Amino acid sequence: MWGIIATWRMAKEGIEKAEKILDSQGDAGDAIEMAIKEVEDFPYYKSVGYGGLPNEAMEVELDAAYMNGDTLSVGAVASLQDFANPISIARRLSHETVNCMLVGQGAESFACQEGFERKNMLTDRAKIHYKNRIKEEQSKLQPYAGHDTVGMVCLDDSGKMTAATSTSGLFMKKKGRVGDSPIIGSGFYVDSQIGGASATGLGEDLMKGCISYEIVRLMAQGMHPQKACEKAVFELEQKLIKRRGHAGDLSVVAMNKDGEFGVASNIEAFSFVVCLPHLKPTVYLVQREGNHCTYQPASQQWLDEYMQTRMAPLKEK
Amino acid sequence: MWGIIATWRMAKEGIEKAEKILDSQGDAGDAIEMAIKEVEDFPYYKSVGYGGLPNEAMEVELDAAYMNGDTLSVGAVASLQDFANPISIARRLSHETVNCMLVGQGAESFACQEGFERKNMLTDRAKIHYKNRIKEEQSKLQPYAGHDTVGMVCLDDSGKMTAATSTSGLFMKKKGRVGDSPIIGSGFYVDSQIGGASATGLGEDLMKGCISYEIVRLMAQGMHPQKACEKAVFELEQKLIKRRGHAGDLSVVAMNKDGEFGVASNIEAFSFVVCLPHLKPTVYLVQREGNHCTYQPASQQWLDEYMQTRMAPLKEK
Repeated sequence: MWGIIATWRMAKEGIEKAEKILDSQGDAGDAIEMAIKEVEDFPYYKSVGYGGLPNEAMEVELDAAYMNGDTLSVGAVASLQDFANPISIARRLSHETVNCMLVGQGAESFACQEGFERKNMLTDRAKIHYKNRIKEEQSKLQPYAGHDTVGMVCLDDSGKMTAATSTSGLFMKKKGRVGDSPIIGSGFYVDSQIGGASATGLGEDLMKGCISYEIVRLMAQGMHPQKACEKAVFELEQKLIKRRGHAGDLSVVAMNKDGEFGVASNIEAFSFVVCLPHLKPTVYLVQREGNHCTYQPASQQWLDEYMQTRMAPLKEK
Repeated sequence: MWGIIATWRMAKEGIEKAEKILDSQGDAGDAIEMAIKEVEDFPYYKSVGYGGLPNEAMEVELDAAYMNGDTLSVGAVASLQDFANPISIARRLSHETVNCMLVGQGAESFACQEGFERKNMLTDRAKIHYKNRIKEEQSKLQPYAGHDTVGMVCLDDSGKMTAATSTSGLFMKKKGRVGDSPIIGSGFYVDSQIGGASATGLGEDLMKGCISYEIVRLMAQGMHPQKACEKAVFELEQKLIKRRGHAGDLSVVAMNKDGEFGVASNIEAFSFVVCLPHLKPTVYLVQREGNHCTYQPASQQWLDEYMQTRMAPLKEK
């Protein structure tokens, strides 16, 4: 049995590459890194890697993490500038015994020393988004509500599981801001003997519930991934509303060691991609119904419009 | 009812200050910040604040976090240089809705803008430690095994709980390295309706179990803090040994909403400080017995020797 699940439509092309690896008994680490790199490299996704939207200083700061569910080894980078593939640096760090999470200039020095590719990650398109936003919000610079981390959980034929994330974080964030994506337990968690989970949404709120760890813990008690995702998301949402008056966007994907998967979201437009031996990479759209979620394959029209919107010409206002 | 518990003997003077606040119906946020600042300011503690040992580039990089158990608000800084009191910056960040965790230069810019005191945190004594270590380990620079984060959990008379941490991290760490201390769920977690926990030890291993979140979760099920601490530490230790062949140092303190407390450690020399309405600030030494821990008050001789060792003259080799 093998399988891979990822947050958002944007993961599809990466999942298609991972499928080839997993279907030929490849490694869950290689598959998930390949899949995330594909998303990082595509210039039209505004929230991950190349083309990601910048912070308030017009710098693209990237966060990524990698976890090996066999050894529980973790590697993570945060507030990293100007490297093509943060996920590969994170995976490299997971092989260290200490110094596994590096941020800012320290992360960049390490990546240089290890020979990773330097790349100016700020695209002309991202610059236009930045300039337009400045003009729109002259009064007060607010971080953009969009925060589409690509997060994945992967199971290979040998039973090894991995989890990984990559994001440019909140558009217009403060320099140095770190969300949930590179934070173990919040943005991701995986244990090959149980399963894994990954989150996307408002990092500051996802972190308050250690939501990925919580989902894995629920699966460890025998709960199906779908039920575990719903329980974790809606209990955290309720708690946040009770304690704070409001809850940010919370969306999660999970897969257990048997390849069963689950998703949950408290927003309207959450999409995810899943691939299994008998299921080609498929984009699903999630619908919330009370404290449950259902999903159905995205229509061809939706898929066409998605890519057209992403790649539509963009003009400076 | 009120109470405060902290990792390591070094917290004692801070806890004495917190006691005054808590005993006069003060706020758990004010008390814990005051207590941590006291540890940060004392120049002879090598692992927290001023006097903390530097990274491999001879820079003192500081991590700290603050959590409000009523609102679940969190503020955290990591890889922060040259500020006197990282804990105060972390607490300030906890009042933000987003951008609550800042690292590196971004954290420093924020702290400057907010008027926090700049301070060269590298002491002459820390420099001597650094130079001696370089001479001792000319062959290969290894991070030092010592990693004494001050971590605290506090309950005030109104029922509000807080948790906080502060550390300079691993001696000789790589620039930009972040351990468990500023990571929610790993270094700390608190929920006023349940209780809180904080950890110290090898950050990279503590993070693999989201140990502070796990302890709070166990307390939520009705488990006594002592049992919750033991279960979390020894199950994680066993898991790490099984999956990786070895486990790093894992030590924790916890307190629940009723002021009951617990501790556990898989090392020999873990000390902690606790203070309650009818218990003056007291240093205890923890002894492991199988998968349980007992503790007894430190003798006057131990306490005297502790401070003499910390403040003994230090010569460059």
